[in-house]
Amino acid sequence: MNNFKPVVQGFEQQFPKFLPQDPNQLCEAIRYSALAPGKRLRPYLLIETASIFNAPTPQALAAAAAIECVHVYSLIHDDLPAMDDDDERRGQPTLHKKYDEATAILAGDALLTLAFSILGEHAPQLSKPLADAAGWAGMVGGQMIDLAAENKTLKLEEIFILQSLKTGALFHFCTQAGAMLGNASETEKAALKEYTSALGLLFQLTDDLLDAEGDPSKLGKATRKDDAAGKATTISLLGMDGAKALIIEQANLAKNALLKLKGREVIHLHGLIDFIQNRER
Amino acid sequence: MNNFKPVVQGFEQQFPKFLPQDPNQLCEAIRYSALAPGKRLRPYLLIETASIFNAPTPQALAAAAAIECVHVYSLIHDDLPAMDDDDERRGQPTLHKKYDEATAILAGDALLTLAFSILGEHAPQLSKPLADAAGWAGMVGGQMIDLAAENKTLKLEEIFILQSLKTGALFHFCTQAGAMLGNASETEKAALKEYTSALGLLFQLTDDLLDAEGDPSKLGKATRKDDAAGKATTISLLGMDGAKALIIEQANLAKNALLKLKGREVIHLHGLIDFIQNRER
Repeated sequence: MNNFKPVVQGFEQQFPKFLPQDPNQLCEAIRYSALAPGKRLRPYLLIETASIFNAPTPQALAAAAAIECVHVYSLIHDDLPAMDDDDERRGQPTLHKKYDEATAILAGDALLTLAFSILGEHAPQLSKPLADAAGWAGMVGGQMIDLAAENKTLKLEEIFILQSLKTGALFHFCTQAGAMLGNASETEKAALKEYTSALGLLFQLTDDLLDAEGDPSKLGKATRKDDAAGKATTISLLGMDGAKALIIEQANLAKNALLKLKGREVIHLHGLIDFIQNRER
Repeated sequence: MNNFKPVVQGFEQQFPKFLPQDPNQLCEAIRYSALAPGKRLRPYLLIETASIFNAPTPQALAAAAAIECVHVYSLIHDDLPAMDDDDERRGQPTLHKKYDEATAILAGDALLTLAFSILGEHAPQLSKPLADAAGWAGMVGGQMIDLAAENKTLKLEEIFILQSLKTGALFHFCTQAGAMLGNASETEKAALKEYTSALGLLFQLTDDLLDAEGDPSKLGKATRKDDAAGKATTISLLGMDGAKALIIEQANLAKNALLKLKGREVIHLHGLIDFIQNRER
């Protein structure tokens, strides 16, 4: 049906080569978190977009490794006691539980830094886009709003802004990076931006659904955290039916955006929409 | 005598322009730490080296801003309760004391990321050298060894390795960046590497002296921390006289390295050696 599995397997064969292997606790911690079983959604999105535009595979793989390093670092820091205080991630103890907080802070720092070493070597033109997507005006900014949200009730619009920063910015980077590496046109980049906007929101909505309805043993992490933290979510604001309707709407928006990539083989980006829409609860 | 003050003043006029100004807690925290009165030693070293080789000033300023962002992020994370647990830095409360731990973690993350946004825009060829100097095989690696050192007594040689990673790697980046921006020769780069090796060790030795003998009110941070933590330092291993002798030796090594930069105006890099050697205790 779709090529998610083989592409992710290909990525996972290469990814360890980008990680340090020295026999010390820092490098072991980096590999513990980076090589834990993850969905690899961002690498997939980047590699698949790059392949649509016939971008060089080694560059796409390196950029995919960089984005996964950034994603893993963000999970490590988000899980810290001072942040979301999570004990489990990807089906194993969080890094600060496995080692200690200092190791988790430093391993996260090292992974973020490593991303820019990888890009600097293989695709330096992507350094600024990644930094902008990941920084104060992107992912970190979104995380900051998310933390502040524990003390107040966000409106739906504010949740969408939060989501567009916290997860949307990196999604955008993935498709823009693939497009840049393959010299896509501005029109095509704009269509991909529409696609990832809808895809990111779809991802958030299904994530909230999983948190509300999902099975922790299948997800490899605790559920109903937002509820316990008194945080407003798309579910608490829209209701289950409203959220499900919005999921269908965003899936259609994403599909319509792909129609604008005329003459490009978008079947797998199309499949990714279904994949996210129907992920296991 | 030397141009340290005017160069640093010039840098400090430009530095705020590289920082985000949005009216939210994350951006305020970034500016609180980044604009606190710091020595700006790394920006000075980078700008001065760049000027020796007639590198373009805007690029040198941007690279100096990037290295200072990395330095400030490292201070913020080092000060966290899970790390060195410091209450005061640069004469003001540490960031997690001023705000909270989550804000400090995220502001540090954002500053590290910002460094690569700045380089990506103004000097992308420096992204990989900076990432390598700051990451697992450089500064972060050194910090990890430093934390582990609380539970065992390091030998002198191990302290030197620690120092070469924790502070030396960024010092090297400063002179290498200046040299790269000014198209210095490989011989010149090698001489600068010798210079910064000695300068970095000199800095560490005088830092240990300041920690042992210095006045906290002049330093803007607590002293005798290493002693309290039971950490071996150059002072505890060499004795005060031995450390002072090594300071003179390293200062001479640094001066000799500068002699190899024939035909270049090294007077201010020479002055920096004296400046570090004699900084106020």
